[in-house]
Amino acid sequence: MKKISILGATGSIGTQAIEVLKNNRDRFELESMSIGRNTTRLHEILASVTPKMVSVMDDGDRKSLEARYPTITFVSGEDGLQAVAADDSDMLLTAVMGSIGLPPTLTAIENGKDIALANKETLVAAGEIVMDKAREHDVQIIPVDSEHSAIFQCMRGESPSEIKRLIITASGGSFRDLSRDELHDVTLADALNHPNWAMGRKITIDSATMMNKGLEVIEAKWLFDLEVDRISTLLHRESTIHSMVEFVDNSIIAQLGNSDMKGPIQFAFSHPERLAMDNPLDFDTLTQLNFKPMDFERFRMLKLAYEAVEIGGTMPAVMNASNEYAVDRFLKGEISFLDIEKIVELRMNGHEVIDEPDLETILYYDEIFKSDMR
Amino acid sequence: MKKISILGATGSIGTQAIEVLKNNRDRFELESMSIGRNTTRLHEILASVTPKMVSVMDDGDRKSLEARYPTITFVSGEDGLQAVAADDSDMLLTAVMGSIGLPPTLTAIENGKDIALANKETLVAAGEIVMDKAREHDVQIIPVDSEHSAIFQCMRGESPSEIKRLIITASGGSFRDLSRDELHDVTLADALNHPNWAMGRKITIDSATMMNKGLEVIEAKWLFDLEVDRISTLLHRESTIHSMVEFVDNSIIAQLGNSDMKGPIQFAFSHPERLAMDNPLDFDTLTQLNFKPMDFERFRMLKLAYEAVEIGGTMPAVMNASNEYAVDRFLKGEISFLDIEKIVELRMNGHEVIDEPDLETILYYDEIFKSDMR
Repeated sequence: MKKISILGATGSIGTQAIEVLKNNRDRFELESMSIGRNTTRLHEILASVTPKMVSVMDDGDRKSLEARYPTITFVSGEDGLQAVAADDSDMLLTAVMGSIGLPPTLTAIENGKDIALANKETLVAAGEIVMDKAREHDVQIIPVDSEHSAIFQCMRGESPSEIKRLIITASGGSFRDLSRDELHDVTLADALNHPNWAMGRKITIDSATMMNKGLEVIEAKWLFDLEVDRISTLLHRESTIHSMVEFVDNSIIAQLGNSDMKGPIQFAFSHPERLAMDNPLDFDTLTQLNFKPMDFERFRMLKLAYEAVEIGGTMPAVMNASNEYAVDRFLKGEISFLDIEKIVELRMNGHEVIDEPDLETILYYDEIFKSDMR
Repeated sequence: MKKISILGATGSIGTQAIEVLKNNRDRFELESMSIGRNTTRLHEILASVTPKMVSVMDDGDRKSLEARYPTITFVSGEDGLQAVAADDSDMLLTAVMGSIGLPPTLTAIENGKDIALANKETLVAAGEIVMDKAREHDVQIIPVDSEHSAIFQCMRGESPSEIKRLIITASGGSFRDLSRDELHDVTLADALNHPNWAMGRKITIDSATMMNKGLEVIEAKWLFDLEVDRISTLLHRESTIHSMVEFVDNSIIAQLGNSDMKGPIQFAFSHPERLAMDNPLDFDTLTQLNFKPMDFERFRMLKLAYEAVEIGGTMPAVMNASNEYAVDRFLKGEISFLDIEKIVELRMNGHEVIDEPDLETILYYDEIFKSDMR
């Protein structure tokens, strides 16, 4: 029985991860989990699974939950996240949103746990530190993003030295059929309406700006140890091909499937095995797959991400934190859609890069650039 | 240095294999080869590569060639094929057309050589015998068909027990846009005009009748040790996805590339390594891939092939030999396109199946059903 813990159990990935655990009770058990403030959803989860420990954000919530669930240990705040990261499980799924996932991910690695990584900001902000630590403690980082899970699967049995390039597919997000001019008038509700994937709010906005693909390029650089000039992107509106790997002999291996995150989640849990699932791709209705070269003028955020990683040092962390800040303000209705890009670009331009930053430096800039900076 | 021999060096696959060898002279050398009667092409080949031994069909050719190339040993006839199969090479590429490839393939296996298999009729007629012998002598059978090479590549690092099914793609052949009624009037020239692949004449006709896909299904059954109810086919007119494997978790791994047989040939030679090649798939011009469920009423030859393998015993060999006979007559202009199907079906209906046939029995029926049977 493999013991799994989840950071961010009430989010989109967390909720689907709980489904995967429930569908495979003979294989996996939930050791502990963290949530934010969504105690309503927590009660639903605890009706069907019983972890040993639950971490909540507010200490107030902790007290009332302890009274209601006497057999479960409740912890809270950042210490709570750290307690989950240091528990007795074999694998930690990091499914929290944003760079808050970084410190507990490092703790889990230090405790020798494999990581199912659904938090791409961790590698964007501190890829080198995380991957070095993973090597040092001999733990595996298994991606849960559909694109990176696809590449990970395409790489099975292959030699990394024979990779020519990765081809990360991009649906284009909510506004893929709009010109740049048409983006001036889009609303938050429009932005949250992703054509293919039901995901959390932040990643849905990141898909619409194409920053999500930029974060994925940087994540891929660290996960697969490749320079970004060997990581390309391709518009593919159906999201049926989740990503591809081109090898030196021009053979391309691709992974396909439905737009169902339970696939990559279950694969991360069951790896190296594959376990039966329902909901296969329906080839009776699959008639056409479309492709278009990426347009860096239309999707300038992706260009910014390539620039950030070329500059290196603290710049990717600054770009990521600025994006978290701007998306948060857009989600609150305080700025327009195109303001997200303006804010990220302005903040990147104003940042003096620190080379080879340590974790404290990264967390320092992350904190500053996630704030109003006034 | 890997020593490679080729059966059928002047055919379409053989010619491209020689190109692959010439592009990788630091890795591969041509030990010996067989040709039929195309001595013109042989002179061209011998201008750039020098094998130790060449087998020709006619003993008359042998004598004149010996005079011209004193450093090369020439052999002829079936004994010549056997001599090539028993030479000192590490791998034999069987690129002859039809069941004539079967005896020398078995000889090569008995001599412990790996087989690069471009002759699907070998496995269709005698799959069980060939695969048993390969296991017995611990040799690898590496497919050179683009579809089977794709599946072989998709299976790298995967567990055979986790396969749900194979999905073999089919371009549809020269007449894919015609109805059955329109097939009455098609000509040999039309049939030889394949939309995607430049191949030999027999396989191009087999593509137009869809018998080629039937032979591939049977070949896949033996190569990958799967029952045919787990081997499906899918119309895909661009032939860009060469084939796919669906696993129990619904994850689908596909292999893509140009319609260039040098890819599968080189992979068979270099396996488990991949070697650099030119001519990558151009993603700037790749805009659309189309798919359609297979239509077994339109393509009745494929249905016949599934039936033949369900019946088993001598039936696949009889189907294959009848098809070789009928295609040969069509290529000579003696029968119409739809007559191919009629002849194969009639001959299959008239055959009393022998279960668990030995090699002699298979070769006996192969001989009979390839003849006029008068």
